[in-house]
Amino acid sequence: MKQDSGTGGPSRRLLVSTLAALPVLLGPLRSISASAQTSGDPLPSWNEGATKQSITGFVARVTTQGGPDFVPADQRIATFDNDGTLWIEQPMYVQLAFILDRVKGLAPQNPGWKTRQPFKAVLDGDLKALAASGEKGLMQLIAVTHAGMTSEEFAKIVSDWLVTARHPRFNKPYTELVYQPMLELLAYLRANGFKTFIVSGGGIEFMRPWTEKIYGIPPEQVVGSSIKTRFEMRDGQPRLFRLPEVNFVDDKAGKPVGINEHIGRQPIAAFGNSDGDLEMLQWTTMTGSGARFGLIVHHTDAEREYAYDRQAHFGKLDLALDAAAVNRWTVVDMKKDWKRVFAFQ
Amino acid sequence: MKQDSGTGGPSRRLLVSTLAALPVLLGPLRSISASAQTSGDPLPSWNEGATKQSITGFVARVTTQGGPDFVPADQRIATFDNDGTLWIEQPMYVQLAFILDRVKGLAPQNPGWKTRQPFKAVLDGDLKALAASGEKGLMQLIAVTHAGMTSEEFAKIVSDWLVTARHPRFNKPYTELVYQPMLELLAYLRANGFKTFIVSGGGIEFMRPWTEKIYGIPPEQVVGSSIKTRFEMRDGQPRLFRLPEVNFVDDKAGKPVGINEHIGRQPIAAFGNSDGDLEMLQWTTMTGSGARFGLIVHHTDAEREYAYDRQAHFGKLDLALDAAAVNRWTVVDMKKDWKRVFAFQ
Repeated sequence: MKQDSGTGGPSRRLLVSTLAALPVLLGPLRSISASAQTSGDPLPSWNEGATKQSITGFVARVTTQGGPDFVPADQRIATFDNDGTLWIEQPMYVQLAFILDRVKGLAPQNPGWKTRQPFKAVLDGDLKALAASGEKGLMQLIAVTHAGMTSEEFAKIVSDWLVTARHPRFNKPYTELVYQPMLELLAYLRANGFKTFIVSGGGIEFMRPWTEKIYGIPPEQVVGSSIKTRFEMRDGQPRLFRLPEVNFVDDKAGKPVGINEHIGRQPIAAFGNSDGDLEMLQWTTMTGSGARFGLIVHHTDAEREYAYDRQAHFGKLDLALDAAAVNRWTVVDMKKDWKRVFAFQ
Repeated sequence: MKQDSGTGGPSRRLLVSTLAALPVLLGPLRSISASAQTSGDPLPSWNEGATKQSITGFVARVTTQGGPDFVPADQRIATFDNDGTLWIEQPMYVQLAFILDRVKGLAPQNPGWKTRQPFKAVLDGDLKALAASGEKGLMQLIAVTHAGMTSEEFAKIVSDWLVTARHPRFNKPYTELVYQPMLELLAYLRANGFKTFIVSGGGIEFMRPWTEKIYGIPPEQVVGSSIKTRFEMRDGQPRLFRLPEVNFVDDKAGKPVGINEHIGRQPIAAFGNSDGDLEMLQWTTMTGSGARFGLIVHHTDAEREYAYDRQAHFGKLDLALDAAAVNRWTVVDMKKDWKRVFAFQ
């Protein structure tokens, strides 16, 4: 699974691992600085051109009081996919990396896993066997890694993991592998009265412990997939227990459903990068009468990040790329449109 | 079901019905005026005393920078039950009145209902037979009144109904039968940096069309019970269809679950009036280390509104009243603590 890191020799490695020891809290500073830049160019990591203009043009139209496309601030709802739109999703979804690490961490207490699928596949690093275990296998892995504890305990497990986990290619905490141009975009929209939401296929409680620090998006503005929870008074203390049962899958046709349930009104702008975002973009841009904006991040930069689309295992972009042309959604060519992908570049 | 209205003779009736013709949009004006009052007494409809002091004392503690109980603004989450806490719930839940009216309105197109339960019971006004039809009967009524249309269509049906429907005793739109002291409390909390949420057993899409106008609470801050929806492209248009299937019941132990799913963090203050709010109050006040506040509205005023608690059919307050004493939650004695119940009094 490990890809060519391109990070050079040992001294570079040393530097990288020293930098990696910095707290994950760099995120907030980064968004503050992005927000402070709104007096000059609010999107300094975006190259000039049609893509950048489509964004600033839309924002200008909906914020021009008295203009034909003006939208009152409380209706400026913008929704963002997370994996592949705000942070890295290759060589696998970060949450899947978490699951694999967690299974390995719990293995000593579960000696039977050595011979039982899908756990054996994880412990052997046999991703083919893992894939063969299918949805049932994945659900078993979710059950042992995401359920059986309180919501509070799970949040701590996720936070602790994010401090120590490193991306296999970039050797950095995942929370530093967020796209700098998108951080600027989030800050720019908020500076223009937008309320920014995450609408992700990822786990809602996997994201909430860190989205406020990293993206400036508070827990109540995060929509995602979830397992069921049960409220219980235990030893006189109220607790929410996480159960090994799917509650909601916030992907594809689930995204408009999740948006409706959590937000209760239609976004006027939506940002995604894969076929999982198609219905969210349709729901956002093809209904209502006012100005709407749809954007797709197209991963075209194998050097600074990854290049993938129609054939990808994670973040497949096929139907939504065709739909983008038909519906005139903005398609970001990462290689061409972004000055840098990550803050450290 | 109709109770003694106490509204006097025909001229009073004429006056009342003329007033009732005013748009339901009086709400926002009312909350603006409540908010404007924060320079003087922010809670003018609350009598002086221990109840009012418990509220202002809590708000002072959590907003005093440097004080031992200071809470940063982004963590000042307050959750409010709706029925019986923010608006009237007698002689029956407003949403039940909507269901009954809606069944009557749809009856001409459904002649078979005249002889089929639970519809017959509704058309005959036979609430005993209706109650006998139980949960299954209620689900059938919800199916024909709440499902089978898009979310947008349902919002319009609710909004239209609220304009014409009148409360059987007060002969006023339900949106005027909101508690003036609670409107002031909502505005007061917001003026002090709180984010106010509704967490109600009522239907989430039954509330959202009007909560922003009436309470100043936007759709994304409304949590409630829901039926399932399905996203579909129909005639090239994206639509969300409402299905006759329960998705989530946001009542009792469901309230902390709904809070966790929608808000993703713990409230520091919770406001309710019935046993349906017990777990929300426990979840809010019995966990975490900072200052917390729980409040129960006790309906003690038969003259200006209704008096009910342990024996009530709607809004039963029994276990939560006992728990209030043990946990030192504030109990509002409506008769004693409120100068007026409604704005028109």
